[in-house]
Amino acid sequence: MTRIAAVQLSPVVGDLAGNTARAEAVLREVLAAGAEIVVLPELTTSGYVFTDEAEARGLAIDAEDPLLARWSSLLGDAVLVVGFAELGRGGRLYNSAAVLDRSGTRAVYRKVHLWDLEKRVFTPGSDLPAVVETPYGRLGVMVCFDLEFPEWTRIAALRGADLLAVPANWPVQPRPDGGDVPEVQIAAATARLNHMAVLVADRQGPERGVTWAGGTHVVGADGGIVDRVGPGDGVAWADLDLPASRDKRQGELVDLLGDRRPDLYGPLLA
Amino acid sequence: MTRIAAVQLSPVVGDLAGNTARAEAVLREVLAAGAEIVVLPELTTSGYVFTDEAEARGLAIDAEDPLLARWSSLLGDAVLVVGFAELGRGGRLYNSAAVLDRSGTRAVYRKVHLWDLEKRVFTPGSDLPAVVETPYGRLGVMVCFDLEFPEWTRIAALRGADLLAVPANWPVQPRPDGGDVPEVQIAAATARLNHMAVLVADRQGPERGVTWAGGTHVVGADGGIVDRVGPGDGVAWADLDLPASRDKRQGELVDLLGDRRPDLYGPLLA
Repeated sequence: MTRIAAVQLSPVVGDLAGNTARAEAVLREVLAAGAEIVVLPELTTSGYVFTDEAEARGLAIDAEDPLLARWSSLLGDAVLVVGFAELGRGGRLYNSAAVLDRSGTRAVYRKVHLWDLEKRVFTPGSDLPAVVETPYGRLGVMVCFDLEFPEWTRIAALRGADLLAVPANWPVQPRPDGGDVPEVQIAAATARLNHMAVLVADRQGPERGVTWAGGTHVVGADGGIVDRVGPGDGVAWADLDLPASRDKRQGELVDLLGDRRPDLYGPLLA
Repeated sequence: MTRIAAVQLSPVVGDLAGNTARAEAVLREVLAAGAEIVVLPELTTSGYVFTDEAEARGLAIDAEDPLLARWSSLLGDAVLVVGFAELGRGGRLYNSAAVLDRSGTRAVYRKVHLWDLEKRVFTPGSDLPAVVETPYGRLGVMVCFDLEFPEWTRIAALRGADLLAVPANWPVQPRPDGGDVPEVQIAAATARLNHMAVLVADRQGPERGVTWAGGTHVVGADGGIVDRVGPGDGVAWADLDLPASRDKRQGELVDLLGDRRPDLYGPLLA
């Protein structure tokens, strides 16, 4: 079993130093508590509600920033996924997630499906969801709104992800069914359809007129919610057998991936 | 607004005449109550748990069977979707759904993603989900396990379905989250991800050692459950504005279909 921590934070837009310090403090805490996989929210370092592209640019760091190397050095045997505003080599900005271990940066995934006003700040990524081999299993990574494209989550499953780690910033949305954060339902269905554990590290609280939902949770490969944070900062914990996600059978002759009909799925490319 | 009825029944395997009579009785009832779109479960005519292929063959009807013409003649302005065991021209058996209106049979969809032991009885279909233009909006049709392939539901949305009508036979499955039929969560997420209403007409009760879940329900395009039947036979009703499903916007710059990245989805065909 792998001990997994999904961290819910409330970054302050513009406060790079403070956000970094708060994230590092909770990282140290969960590592001390035995976390082997840690996921922090989307745009943990910068905050989210930028006034304009220039503000975002001032808060972006490049993928070789010493911050990531420092966090790598804290990890021991653990793996960290963390969202950050990335300044690319050509000067473009990306809404990215880094996968770090003691060896350094294992992958940087750039959010492909940008949400709403992000389109005015960031360039969309063009690579598939990251799938990183770790001692605990294969870690799939995408960012927030990417989770709402079933094509994208399916591709992560097809590429072998055992746990899909999703740094997110979910704004509060209308809730047709009452109490729950509606995107949690999407994460749970994604887990069940793909027999793949899903983890969302969300943020909470207000920021420049937006209220963040605080939807941090972990779903098992069977679609059942294992833990969630609720209101306030906090950590959702789960002990999961990640390679168990690889058994896609369900009933004697059912295989959730093997029963696909890719010969008929051409319209998805249109 | 369109008045929609999702009918939950308990067919008896082998009792073609009785199943047909019971289905016709409830069809007349819901039509009298003002239903404009009626959906009956998967394999309404035959029942589900066949002893072998020969039993299924004895219960299959072809798509020109007078039964379908008789049901068409009852419909007035309404549209009916009903699951049946189909005997194809070449002698093959299909797990099919017919879409009927007063003009006759508008479409026959053959289940593509066969579940478990169905593979020993039926031939999988090879056509895309049916999408039928009606006076109420565009009706997408697939059968039961098809709903658990996000590629398939997405294709229905891309082809313009406003309401996805799903005749189903859901066996009772483990429920990681306690009370609810887990596939309901999948239907709700499917609706929300595609901004497309989803209706499931399920069966209930025991049949040769299988217990059926009784998960009949209607989900609005926002992912909220509008009505459900619960235990026993019954009808879930909903008044829906079907063409409203076509507005895929969510936020100023968001479009749930327009934000797709089909240029990157090639791995879905592998």
